[in-house]
Amino acid sequence: MTFIHKDFMLQTETARKLYHEHAEKMPIIDYHCHLVPQQIAENIQFRDITQLWLVDGHYGDHYKWRAMRANGVDETYLTGGTKSSWETFEKWAETVPYTMRNPLYHWTHLELSRVFGIDKLLSPATAREIFEECNAKLATEEFRGQALIRKFNVKVVCTTDDPADDLRWHKMIAEKPFGTRVIPAWRPDKAMAIEDPKSYKEYLLKLGEAAGKNIDSYTDLVDALKIRHDFFASMGCKLSDHGLETFYAAPYKEIEIELIFKKVLLGKAPTGAELDKFRSAFLHDMAVMDAEAGWAQQFHVGAIRNNNSKMFNLIGPDTGYDAIHDLPTAAAGHRFFDRLAAEDKLAKTILYCLNPKDNEVMMTMAYTFNDGTFPGKMQFGSGWWFLDQEDGMRKQMNALSTLGLFSRFVGMLTDSRSFISYPRHEYFRRILCDVVGSDVESGRLPASEMERIGQMIEDICYNNANRYFNF
Amino acid sequence: MTFIHKDFMLQTETARKLYHEHAEKMPIIDYHCHLVPQQIAENIQFRDITQLWLVDGHYGDHYKWRAMRANGVDETYLTGGTKSSWETFEKWAETVPYTMRNPLYHWTHLELSRVFGIDKLLSPATAREIFEECNAKLATEEFRGQALIRKFNVKVVCTTDDPADDLRWHKMIAEKPFGTRVIPAWRPDKAMAIEDPKSYKEYLLKLGEAAGKNIDSYTDLVDALKIRHDFFASMGCKLSDHGLETFYAAPYKEIEIELIFKKVLLGKAPTGAELDKFRSAFLHDMAVMDAEAGWAQQFHVGAIRNNNSKMFNLIGPDTGYDAIHDLPTAAAGHRFFDRLAAEDKLAKTILYCLNPKDNEVMMTMAYTFNDGTFPGKMQFGSGWWFLDQEDGMRKQMNALSTLGLFSRFVGMLTDSRSFISYPRHEYFRRILCDVVGSDVESGRLPASEMERIGQMIEDICYNNANRYFNF
Amino acid sequence: MTFIHKDFMLQTETARKLYHEHAEKMPIIDYHCHLVPQQIAENIQFRDITQLWLVDGHYGDHYKWRAMRANGVDETYLTGGTKSSWETFEKWAETVPYTMRNPLYHWTHLELSRVFGIDKLLSPATAREIFEECNAKLATEEFRGQALIRKFNVKVVCTTDDPADDLRWHKMIAEKPFGTRVIPAWRPDKAMAIEDPKSYKEYLLKLGEAAGKNIDSYTDLVDALKIRHDFFASMGCKLSDHGLETFYAAPYKEIEIELIFKKVLLGKAPTGAELDKFRSAFLHDMAVMDAEAGWAQQFHVGAIRNNNSKMFNLIGPDTGYDAIHDLPTAAAGHRFFDRLAAEDKLAKTILYCLNPKDNEVMMTMAYTFNDGTFPGKMQFGSGWWFLDQEDGMRKQMNALSTLGLFSRFVGMLTDSRSFISYPRHEYFRRILCDVVGSDVESGRLPASEMERIGQMIEDICYNNANRYFNF
Repeated sequence: MTFIHKDFMLQTETARKLYHEHAEKMPIIDYHCHLVPQQIAENIQFRDITQLWLVDGHYGDHYKWRAMRANGVDETYLTGGTKSSWETFEKWAETVPYTMRNPLYHWTHLELSRVFGIDKLLSPATAREIFEECNAKLATEEFRGQALIRKFNVKVVCTTDDPADDLRWHKMIAEKPFGTRVIPAWRPDKAMAIEDPKSYKEYLLKLGEAAGKNIDSYTDLVDALKIRHDFFASMGCKLSDHGLETFYAAPYKEIEIELIFKKVLLGKAPTGAELDKFRSAFLHDMAVMDAEAGWAQQFHVGAIRNNNSKMFNLIGPDTGYDAIHDLPTAAAGHRFFDRLAAEDKLAKTILYCLNPKDNEVMMTMAYTFNDGTFPGKMQFGSGWWFLDQEDGMRKQMNALSTLGLFSRFVGMLTDSRSFISYPRHEYFRRILCDVVGSDVESGRLPASEMERIGQMIEDICYNNANRYFNF
Repeated sequence: MTFIHKDFMLQTETARKLYHEHAEKMPIIDYHCHLVPQQIAENIQFRDITQLWLVDGHYGDHYKWRAMRANGVDETYLTGGTKSSWETFEKWAETVPYTMRNPLYHWTHLELSRVFGIDKLLSPATAREIFEECNAKLATEEFRGQALIRKFNVKVVCTTDDPADDLRWHKMIAEKPFGTRVIPAWRPDKAMAIEDPKSYKEYLLKLGEAAGKNIDSYTDLVDALKIRHDFFASMGCKLSDHGLETFYAAPYKEIEIELIFKKVLLGKAPTGAELDKFRSAFLHDMAVMDAEAGWAQQFHVGAIRNNNSKMFNLIGPDTGYDAIHDLPTAAAGHRFFDRLAAEDKLAKTILYCLNPKDNEVMMTMAYTFNDGTFPGKMQFGSGWWFLDQEDGMRKQMNALSTLGLFSRFVGMLTDSRSFISYPRHEYFRRILCDVVGSDVESGRLPASEMERIGQMIEDICYNNANRYFNF
Repeated sequence: MTFIHKDFMLQTETARKLYHEHAEKMPIIDYHCHLVPQQIAENIQFRDITQLWLVDGHYGDHYKWRAMRANGVDETYLTGGTKSSWETFEKWAETVPYTMRNPLYHWTHLELSRVFGIDKLLSPATAREIFEECNAKLATEEFRGQALIRKFNVKVVCTTDDPADDLRWHKMIAEKPFGTRVIPAWRPDKAMAIEDPKSYKEYLLKLGEAAGKNIDSYTDLVDALKIRHDFFASMGCKLSDHGLETFYAAPYKEIEIELIFKKVLLGKAPTGAELDKFRSAFLHDMAVMDAEAGWAQQFHVGAIRNNNSKMFNLIGPDTGYDAIHDLPTAAAGHRFFDRLAAEDKLAKTILYCLNPKDNEVMMTMAYTFNDGTFPGKMQFGSGWWFLDQEDGMRKQMNALSTLGLFSRFVGMLTDSRSFISYPRHEYFRRILCDVVGSDVESGRLPASEMERIGQMIEDICYNNANRYFNF
């Protein structure tokens, strides 16, 4: 029997039934990912499995990079461009057997199996043949970018885009549809990043250009963003996203925000208190914009980033030097949503947390603001990044279930830059069915209600997200 | 087989044996709840299942309200009084199938089964017949308030009462006993609530009246509370309770506390530092009073309340807008108990925490102050509120077991305002027996010690609480 | 069947195979413990089981003391010296049945079985015979200190030593080897403890004497420590250890540290900000020393100590009044390691955390600083102290596995002062094999890879630590 077999991760009869009769057939909505629109539009043909899996220009798979560094692999195999594709791949193949119990072990073999039809385990012994088989396939039409997405029955993909982005690649994709809708999503993190005045001013120039408007004040900033927000909406955008260390909801007056903005324009770094006020105002104004446009908003909370400054200076952000933060979130988070609720400007909202100790806080915070206007309006999102693995998923599902309505969960997303991470939806679904199947077999859910339970599985896999985002 | 069958939640042979031979037969001591004394004294006859379960005047079941709001039920079905009992009940029946994996799904069917003898699952299809069957039964004598309590073999109920309360309903109950002792418990939260000077001054008038004493100083306040404390003791009270965001143990001088108190009497809101000092003094003085009276004290720590100010202004507190807080507790908590221990004024103490991440902190904090004077003197209390569910209970039991003496645990309480929440004791006991049964079957506990293990189960169900509180 | 039988804790066939074919045979490296070097050197003969298990002068087993106090045992049985060995032992025997589900229940019976060959369960009924059998054995040569260690196939023991220690007992042991290498480890906590100027100045005298150098400045302090560090290295030392409430990484200038040091020498207590700066400087300088010597460094983070001041004044530290702290660690921790990485002075590092909520934070923090220079360079250490039990170990193993490379884990240590705590390595190994065995049987790890998996078990038990520390 192969490692990734038909009933992988499905421990009970009911789990297998739920998966094969309900979960497996549902299409995918990948409502938050980091696929590169240009690569989709150009229908990228990957040079080889190393580009697809490990190193793509100065980017790469930071999960794998962290594992390889921890396994004693020299940095030159990952960054710097001095090693051949094979040399890098070989180091990964050496590392794979050491990733047992890490999600990489499952992801790697799921991807080999589902994308390439390879059921061998990757190791030094199999590295060469797998390298060659993958590369041969990647050279064909059926393994170009769009085909890889289509293969997994993906109905919608939402990318992650900056307000200054002209969305030209989205236009191109829309003009030549390939079976999966590709929609932009609004991520205005750079428009909030006043902590580095120099970069911020450069960014404002770009944003102003995109909006056709000079940005000389905070009011100008919000106006420019509104112009872009409308443009994103016209391109089909239905949701926003923010990457935050924690929530911000300090009291402020508008004049204070204008003064902080001016200070930053003068090149002076804001104080901690000024940052707090500015972020509080900015996030509030963005949330109002989302509510008025009828979008959903997402908050990814709890990363501490770019912690290795030596490596940051060498190779930049998103290269495997981020970690889990431990700031408090409850007080500011509740104040933030309370104000929006009081002003009747609370959009549909998904909260993701990166520190599993905060699952219950985030979950009860979200549910404190449900107002009966839409089923599942306030969502506690699926296990994210470091928590996008079995243990993280089970904890998220349990926190959501015991403190809210699991049945209304909008389910899985990849959050990935990779064209072949769709098996993570399968992985999620297998774990989902295993969780619920075990509940049925232990009598925690009534076996007489299999119809309702099967419906719940299908809803979490696809229908809930489909209704929620209304693409 | 019905959903709530004889062996519900009992996965092993040993679990079933422990439950049926030991747990099932033990009486209940509900040492902390929010039953309304007037409703007990007047032996309330419920108008219908909607009043009993969902909406009772401006109160109601906030667990169910949160679930219904999350399921898209309009607020008018819950509050405002414009909908009929049936209309509200129907919305709950529509919501129930969506609560699968939430404790509400188990509680609902446990209560239907144990209270009403109804084994159907509640859903739109069964709503009407269940509504009518429950209502018909509620119209009979055997379903009035006192009979509902008696049905569950409850020996003692401790309500939750304000020091200014005249306990007239407790007197009336004592004069016409119905088989369950109903004892007041001391909850002086309002006497600490100086953050709102206006309400606080109104409260002081009531308290002063009850104590027969003007309250013009902090010393007066403590004196008045002592008078009421003695009165509560004379009415059988044996335990206090505090609802706190976190612990407070700032250094202070008595004169500072008097000045803060005067400031509040003048209608000025205290600063954060003043609040901290005042709470530190107040809680210390209350703890000394409990120790001197030989009471047990309870601390419920970690809620963040009234987070939805729009709804708070419309319908008030305890309506489903509270959540889990994330303040640190270790440093102040240890200082608080250290001072009491040093002064030899540390009463028996139960710590409850609402954030599961704090289980281990609270548990080791409690056990740091055991002094050999009473077995199980310092207790880590059962899963509370949001954590009063299987996952929360298992985590509490495991933290308590691995860091202390599970055998000395005083066990379950309902913390509920409902006359029919006693099946939660059954639910706790089934989970308890499942946990211990699984330990025996996996060899973690010796199968040769079933007598000792059965005794431990009986102790946790009833005997420990009985000895601990000494009602 | 006895309680501690051949397959204790091993729930699956694969777990049993892994344990009996791989784990069981591996030697032990106890790279962090608190054995007293003098007791090893003098090859201590224990007076009785009470001295070995419960009370040894003014020290004792604080785990058992906490349990006994919680069980209502009067302090005189533990400290004060008025009770006989039998009287104290009897109280422990009365407590043992109440420790079911606590690690003490397993440790006690593992130690009776593995050290004394006694398979009876300890209780009042068996207390006298077990007391006498243990005492009779302890009177023989095979139960002296060195034989007890040798019995468990311990290759290396690292004690925990103060920089001012002359390591005379280590010399003596080295001169009369007994089959287990005993190596000092460097724990400079006292050299950082400026919060109590009086004790600190006394300590500086001792340290200065040991180093042959007056210590009149912070520079002197570092120089003196360097002299001792070199001496420790000459005695075989390969690793350091720090016991911290949290990490410290405040910005500072050297002149500030000198001024703080002078202030303390003048007998004035430092402010909180000064403490933070001093600790930041001190820990950085110590870390640089370790990196330059090629040692590994350990950080034990998250205890709040000496919380019961009444008992601290009576019987001193380490007597059962410590608990789990809840300070944030992420921000300062990352800054601390970032600076070392940037300066290329980051030694091999093991992080231990005492609050299980911080497992994921500490784990990702460690892995953010892997640099490919050594496999498993940055380690997330095994469940420590309160977490050195099944639940704590499983959580540590899962956090490590899902966020890093379990295969590179350096595994178990006792952290104990007891000569008979080596069965805790067995306990760890059984849990390890149960965890991995269950992964294989559920298909999470491929059954076809048993060779690799068996190797992983052997590596975690012994080989990884052996390579990592390079004793």
